[in-house]
Amino acid sequence: MMHLVSNSNLKETITAKQKLESFGYKSFMIMTREGEKIAVINVNEQIIKKIPEILQLYSSVNPKMPYILAGREIKDTDTVIDLNYNVKIGSPYFITIAGPCSIESEDQITKIAKKIKQAGGNILRGGSFKPRSSPYAFQGMGKTGLKLLKKASEKYKLPVITEVLDTDDIETVEEYSDILQVGARNCQNYGLLKKLGKINKPVLLKRGMMTTIKEFLLSAEYILSGGNMNVILCERGIRTFETETRNTLDISAVPVLKEKTHLPVIVDPSHATGIARLVEPMSLASLAAGADGVMIEVHNAPEEALSDGDQSIKPEEFYIIMQKIKKIAESFGKRILS
Amino acid sequence: MMHLVSNSNLKETITAKQKLESFGYKSFMIMTREGEKIAVINVNEQIIKKIPEILQLYSSVNPKMPYILAGREIKDTDTVIDLNYNVKIGSPYFITIAGPCSIESEDQITKIAKKIKQAGGNILRGGSFKPRSSPYAFQGMGKTGLKLLKKASEKYKLPVITEVLDTDDIETVEEYSDILQVGARNCQNYGLLKKLGKINKPVLLKRGMMTTIKEFLLSAEYILSGGNMNVILCERGIRTFETETRNTLDISAVPVLKEKTHLPVIVDPSHATGIARLVEPMSLASLAAGADGVMIEVHNAPEEALSDGDQSIKPEEFYIIMQKIKKIAESFGKRILS
Amino acid sequence: MMHLVSNSNLKETITAKQKLESFGYKSFMIMTREGEKIAVINVNEQIIKKIPEILQLYSSVNPKMPYILAGREIKDTDTVIDLNYNVKIGSPYFITIAGPCSIESEDQITKIAKKIKQAGGNILRGGSFKPRSSPYAFQGMGKTGLKLLKKASEKYKLPVITEVLDTDDIETVEEYSDILQVGARNCQNYGLLKKLGKINKPVLLKRGMMTTIKEFLLSAEYILSGGNMNVILCERGIRTFETETRNTLDISAVPVLKEKTHLPVIVDPSHATGIARLVEPMSLASLAAGADGVMIEVHNAPEEALSDGDQSIKPEEFYIIMQKIKKIAESFGKRILS
Amino acid sequence: MMHLVSNSNLKETITAKQKLESFGYKSFMIMTREGEKIAVINVNEQIIKKIPEILQLYSSVNPKMPYILAGREIKDTDTVIDLNYNVKIGSPYFITIAGPCSIESEDQITKIAKKIKQAGGNILRGGSFKPRSSPYAFQGMGKTGLKLLKKASEKYKLPVITEVLDTDDIETVEEYSDILQVGARNCQNYGLLKKLGKINKPVLLKRGMMTTIKEFLLSAEYILSGGNMNVILCERGIRTFETETRNTLDISAVPVLKEKTHLPVIVDPSHATGIARLVEPMSLASLAAGADGVMIEVHNAPEEALSDGDQSIKPEEFYIIMQKIKKIAESFGKRILS
Repeated sequence: MMHLVSNSNLKETITAKQKLESFGYKSFMIMTREGEKIAVINVNEQIIKKIPEILQLYSSVNPKMPYILAGREIKDTDTVIDLNYNVKIGSPYFITIAGPCSIESEDQITKIAKKIKQAGGNILRGGSFKPRSSPYAFQGMGKTGLKLLKKASEKYKLPVITEVLDTDDIETVEEYSDILQVGARNCQNYGLLKKLGKINKPVLLKRGMMTTIKEFLLSAEYILSGGNMNVILCERGIRTFETETRNTLDISAVPVLKEKTHLPVIVDPSHATGIARLVEPMSLASLAAGADGVMIEVHNAPEEALSDGDQSIKPEEFYIIMQKIKKIAESFGKRILS
Repeated sequence: MMHLVSNSNLKETITAKQKLESFGYKSFMIMTREGEKIAVINVNEQIIKKIPEILQLYSSVNPKMPYILAGREIKDTDTVIDLNYNVKIGSPYFITIAGPCSIESEDQITKIAKKIKQAGGNILRGGSFKPRSSPYAFQGMGKTGLKLLKKASEKYKLPVITEVLDTDDIETVEEYSDILQVGARNCQNYGLLKKLGKINKPVLLKRGMMTTIKEFLLSAEYILSGGNMNVILCERGIRTFETETRNTLDISAVPVLKEKTHLPVIVDPSHATGIARLVEPMSLASLAAGADGVMIEVHNAPEEALSDGDQSIKPEEFYIIMQKIKKIAESFGKRILS
Repeated sequence: MMHLVSNSNLKETITAKQKLESFGYKSFMIMTREGEKIAVINVNEQIIKKIPEILQLYSSVNPKMPYILAGREIKDTDTVIDLNYNVKIGSPYFITIAGPCSIESEDQITKIAKKIKQAGGNILRGGSFKPRSSPYAFQGMGKTGLKLLKKASEKYKLPVITEVLDTDDIETVEEYSDILQVGARNCQNYGLLKKLGKINKPVLLKRGMMTTIKEFLLSAEYILSGGNMNVILCERGIRTFETETRNTLDISAVPVLKEKTHLPVIVDPSHATGIARLVEPMSLASLAAGADGVMIEVHNAPEEALSDGDQSIKPEEFYIIMQKIKKIAESFGKRILS
Repeated sequence: MMHLVSNSNLKETITAKQKLESFGYKSFMIMTREGEKIAVINVNEQIIKKIPEILQLYSSVNPKMPYILAGREIKDTDTVIDLNYNVKIGSPYFITIAGPCSIESEDQITKIAKKIKQAGGNILRGGSFKPRSSPYAFQGMGKTGLKLLKKASEKYKLPVITEVLDTDDIETVEEYSDILQVGARNCQNYGLLKKLGKINKPVLLKRGMMTTIKEFLLSAEYILSGGNMNVILCERGIRTFETETRNTLDISAVPVLKEKTHLPVIVDPSHATGIARLVEPMSLASLAAGADGVMIEVHNAPEEALSDGDQSIKPEEFYIIMQKIKKIAESFGKRILS
């Protein structure tokens, strides 16, 4: 059972929230068109009666909508996440996350960060804990890489995002990164998701290669129901029979997700296709489909990259994509952060 | 073995073609950046030596490129297909095909045709021989429907397209339709494709639900190698595990196909998604991805349609999509036929 | 609407059938546990009242069971198809169909037929009209091959099966072959299926690579509703993301189909896996899963085969599989034809 | 680079191993047809020259065989894992793991354990940490359930297996369970796999719903390369377009895996199909395909189960399956533990 508790008066809403918590219920402050409301999961109706500050009560029990906090039924306004350096993620902003697959050296990440800033990219990405199918492949620079990422972040005033692979590393990654990324292979690693529900930083959750849209939203719900309402969803291609591209970008998932959830939805055309030449058309198609942003692999020397060189574009190519995005974003009702 | 025979002089090229044919070889006139050339399949090199008009000879044998006539190696310019009423399909034009899934009555098809013309749609679609998974489902109006389609076509000066299901019906469909459509389930019906290679009208070939891009181009090659060079490819969604949409629109297939072939590539967002609300974002995404057009199901009363009502949009919605397409097409290097 | 008309008296059942047909209804004699019954599709209830020989009437309208004649609701006994040389297909018999992918010469087909007969195989297969993804690949020997197949059939007293690709070839294939095979790519070629509903020979229908079990049964229904009740279903692998095998043998489809339909269900492990070494374990697994037979590619010199050499096994290997099948069939409630 | 170090003399082999480790190399004792050998990963050839006990050195670097310790190239004998109560997993034994999806109460697990023992089942399964797609679904009894499982294990002398979801729980699960199970959603949770490589108990690794066979073996390699050589692989169905069954049992994966790896390969027909009626035919098919065992969900009251009731069979049905397995196992070269 799920309830949405309403009260037009902010002070009373806060009081109601405090009382609910004194009875042991986890509650969530949610900004809707009607103002601040409280969402509570599995609350006992008798308890609610004891809280006079609660003016109205909605039951949102719906077997067809198994996720609650992620859904638009409970929150009808788009979630916008605030980051350092005035960066915002969520409709109507269209943001660009860019950077190398792996952080390889200070020189590499600094050079790329500079080019991304110059081109108008908003967030710097770089992997330092890498999920590789082979245990013998390069596993990333670890904490050393995170420090280099942070340094580049501060130098070019770009918030950063990096992947967290394991619950043991959450604290370290949280220290250095503005957003914590959960990779496709961990999309249903519920232990990890539960712990990310307890932290105070935004989480970017990638859709698994085998994850349905419904399961994807339920995975987001694992983080939300822990109390962390800042989740960004990322479509990055699903596994199909077609081998011409590495995965199949499920572009329809963008409007389907936007209809079902208030969370920001971005697309990763680099991992979805695995082919550098497809990054531009798929970035533009994502914008046209209603996405709130794209995440693009950019490397100064793709042919020498320690991982995923085939899908990385050069800074010059990234610059061209950014120019095109800036030119057309407004036609699709999107704003570019300057 | 395959050869491309070159000669800068058109008259000599034609003479060479005639001689090749007198030796029993099938040959194809192809317009490339260097002018008219002839493509011949499996020609004996001794024979070629007997034709002095042949100045140059290319071997295009390539095990990685099993289709020949469909490929850009042999023809480096985009194919543009001319239709009645000054309609052209192929880059740089972006065309819109629209109409009901099934032709149901004269009133229905006439009303819809009028709205499509008014909105700026270029080609009228309507099925009269319907491929239905159940033998007990409505199978279409047959020849009667084709006559109604033709009448609407003439009234509103819109070229028409309709599906041909069976080799027995080719002649009838050819009589009434400007383009013959091959449905997804017949994408590898080689008997049908071979016969469509012999007709003089353009063929729109839909990708099968589990046809790879390579197999799709090979199916086009069946038509091309019969002598019919006017083939339009249509991405209409592939079958995957995701059930939120009827099929998964493989948007990446658009730039992949455009890179490999000179044939026009269009997208059918209605069948790909099966959901009317997704038709607009997927149409815009197709344009952004580089498609040469879209094919959209439009019905005056979707809730009463005899087939595929869920995915049909209303004329008013089609009008809005057309307005958006007109506004942004140029940004993507495309021209709209006025 | 669909009806099953019952009468315990055979003579009256036949009279009822004749009267129904005099009113223009297509009707089907079906042998059930309660004796001969008549199935009629879409019959008007007023008409039925005019036929006193009809004792009982069942309505089998069921939106969850869109196929009627293929379903067990209307026919509760397993269909057994009688062929020449005392061969029977259908539970409780377990039959083996074997032979080369393509008929290549008289010597080839005769040698293989001899080995198959000696090993205990029941039916000889061999393709003469070949569906190839490339128009430039070997397309089969056509009618010439069929004559060679027929000759081998008579010499070794083995019924034969061969593929029909196109409606134009039905008459020719029907003349020479005991069973007409519809390939996976034509599983939803409804024009072909409708025409095969009118012939008097059994049809083996292969599941398409992208065909769901429900669509597969509906495709069978196209043949059955034409009046041809002798349909054999063949699971031959579906297309998935796994590339280690050519397709993925959907072994669960065997018991699912056996539960839903009275038609015989066989498995083609050669096409499903594309790997000769997997033919033995997958044949045994098919028997264990409840299949009514297997269809196996056998070639005297797989390495020289004109098509599908990788998946063909040698006669010696086929002999070993037959020995194992004979040894264990009884444990699975199956009878081997001697 | 990878090397297999050979020495026919066991004592010298052990000395060589100790010396390798003194140089900081991780090494693995492997029993092959030629006796004990040592496998070393990424060892420097100069170091090897300093160890006179090494008689022979093989380079197994093979880009087509990215997993090393899992492969048959390095270990040509089937791995057999010894458990309590004389249970052995690995060819030529065919073992049966059975029990409820979730442990629900002492009464439930005890009753089921008794029936499984009586029927001849070899290992008791029961989940206490449950991976559920919804955060609001029953998540299992946790440590309390493990204690009940252990109690049932001791009472009926059945080794037990249970799932570990999170690295934090490894120690607890290791304390109570004979085998640690990694679920399909964690098949590429490399943090978890790495830690399971350090424990001393066998690990059963389930194939992910969209994990290729190659990726599956690489995930096993993560555990093996940590030093834990006791890994059991479990095929449990892959995700495809077919919805008649919950997943598609990839039965061909069994012989493909058996050919590539020395590790035991078992099948989970309950999760693969999601339908209780299919458990028997799929269990028999798995045996026929060459599997080393099956894992079956058995519940005393499937209609009341807290999770996965649709796919659970009753103890009586399990008894019948065991009888059939015992009857035919020998025909497939397998031994049943009495």
